[in-house]
Amino acid sequence: MKALRFEDNLLAVRDIAKPAGAEEEEALVRVTLSGVCNTDVEIVRGYAGFKGTIGHEFVGVVESVPGSASTALVGQRVVGEINAGCGQCPLCAAGDARHCPRRTVLGILGRDGAHAEYLRLPVGNLLPVPDEIPDERAVFTEPLAAALGIRERAEVGPETRVVVIGDGKLGLLCAQALSLTGARVTLVGKHAGKLSIAARRGIETVMLDKLPDHGARRFDVAVEASGAASGFDLALGILRPRGTLVLKSTFHGATNINAARLVVDEISVVGSRCGRFAPALDLLRDDRVDVESLISEELPLADGVRAIERATVPGILKVLIRQ
Amino acid sequence: MKALRFEDNLLAVRDIAKPAGAEEEEALVRVTLSGVCNTDVEIVRGYAGFKGTIGHEFVGVVESVPGSASTALVGQRVVGEINAGCGQCPLCAAGDARHCPRRTVLGILGRDGAHAEYLRLPVGNLLPVPDEIPDERAVFTEPLAAALGIRERAEVGPETRVVVIGDGKLGLLCAQALSLTGARVTLVGKHAGKLSIAARRGIETVMLDKLPDHGARRFDVAVEASGAASGFDLALGILRPRGTLVLKSTFHGATNINAARLVVDEISVVGSRCGRFAPALDLLRDDRVDVESLISEELPLADGVRAIERATVPGILKVLIRQ
Repeated sequence: MKALRFEDNLLAVRDIAKPAGAEEEEALVRVTLSGVCNTDVEIVRGYAGFKGTIGHEFVGVVESVPGSASTALVGQRVVGEINAGCGQCPLCAAGDARHCPRRTVLGILGRDGAHAEYLRLPVGNLLPVPDEIPDERAVFTEPLAAALGIRERAEVGPETRVVVIGDGKLGLLCAQALSLTGARVTLVGKHAGKLSIAARRGIETVMLDKLPDHGARRFDVAVEASGAASGFDLALGILRPRGTLVLKSTFHGATNINAARLVVDEISVVGSRCGRFAPALDLLRDDRVDVESLISEELPLADGVRAIERATVPGILKVLIRQ
Repeated sequence: MKALRFEDNLLAVRDIAKPAGAEEEEALVRVTLSGVCNTDVEIVRGYAGFKGTIGHEFVGVVESVPGSASTALVGQRVVGEINAGCGQCPLCAAGDARHCPRRTVLGILGRDGAHAEYLRLPVGNLLPVPDEIPDERAVFTEPLAAALGIRERAEVGPETRVVVIGDGKLGLLCAQALSLTGARVTLVGKHAGKLSIAARRGIETVMLDKLPDHGARRFDVAVEASGAASGFDLALGILRPRGTLVLKSTFHGATNINAARLVVDEISVVGSRCGRFAPALDLLRDDRVDVESLISEELPLADGVRAIERATVPGILKVLIRQ
């Protein structure tokens, strides 16, 4: 089968063996559509030291399940949570493998990913996709879940003053996800066209160079979704004392912070990675989040290398890969 | 009067005018004993850009109060909260001036401090010192309150696994303050003699070079009280996923952080500055915290410059200044 592989510091579409399914006690999924995340780009830049098939956003059809699992899943359209735990540690026992110390992560850590014709995941990671959600929306389940995951890490509710920094695909999903809580969300970006996607959903938007007029130190929560260290500094400048800065972007390298500022203003900086899929699927089914507007391009898997390149071009939002 | 002044990048004991009291609508306090904090040292190194009389830990006797205040306070032995708010903003109206945007802070921000014969503070900042607490203990009210303030910023209770990094005076107070919650506190340091102060209060202690044996990633909360950037990295290495790193030290300059680590392990980094004085006074009155063992030296105010120098000597804990 074809797979987009990062090996020996080289990204290429290669022909590799189709993964075993049932005999590995995992389901085998035929991928139909996958999405390019900035994490894919960072992996190709050396982040996380991953080698193998990249990609972790996908929708597909279950081809086989292990003998121990119900065959009802076979033939179903599914999305899949990306963290596969050991199954034995207290975290896994509590049903949440996201921080299992022995986890693998689809296309990120010790497990081949989704920019391929087939992938494997534990049956418990798979969620059926309701018929109302076409593939082009279902493929956003993972990043939307990640945006919703912010609510596990910061108190956001009606009247919370939230600023999302960055009008890329992640920022646009975060702004929409948080806006649904009733929070007063402001999206800050550099691109009128991207900001308009959020504005159409009733979200206040502001161009970065106009932000100072909006008043400093007024936000309760700032979400750094720009992937730039400057976003961190900007957030510190506009948070109220005891405000919360949510870091969503995983980027390569170290960031300089003014630790004294964190102490004096008693700021909380909280990392946020993955969310749960079920609430994201509900929102997609009920059409409460605009994801179609985030799709910039779709390329075939054979053009996978180009798909990753395209995802780095300014102005491009989500690039999809068709298997 | 004599005052230890930092002006024109020079630290010196100078003779300056005794501050006005009543006419300024503030109380006038005759300082009897003040304590040297690392923040004093950092100010002399350029942190915060402060100019004036340094010092913010003190005990003294009220000499006069403004006409609008009860004269019952005159002659009383007091300690004083160090943030003086505008009195009008919502934060001040709620009784907490610590984050008032127009606040002054004793010996740190826009207000002459405590290493002087007299100081001024609003009447509302002053708390009478119970007779059971001698001056040598009362002077620790401010740093002990700061240690207790951690509990406003991180959930710490019975069974919480807490590590305090740094066996200096701040770390020793933090370890004791948190231990009183029933938390399982481990104090990490480099000095057997300092660690023994905590050990005598039933706190687990470990030398830094033995820490790896204690098992990585097991702590729920890590308190960085070493003032060194290496303490930040150490904390990240021993916190569990979704653990909380409390920053207590205000130090000068930027800190490099691995932001990806914060995101992947969903760590919270929370700054913590000042606490409230009343609970600290209760603990001092009931002898629940050993502060006497933290006193290394006492110098007269005339030797104030030397007192600050002594506070930077390795092995020295609290240096007191007698007015």
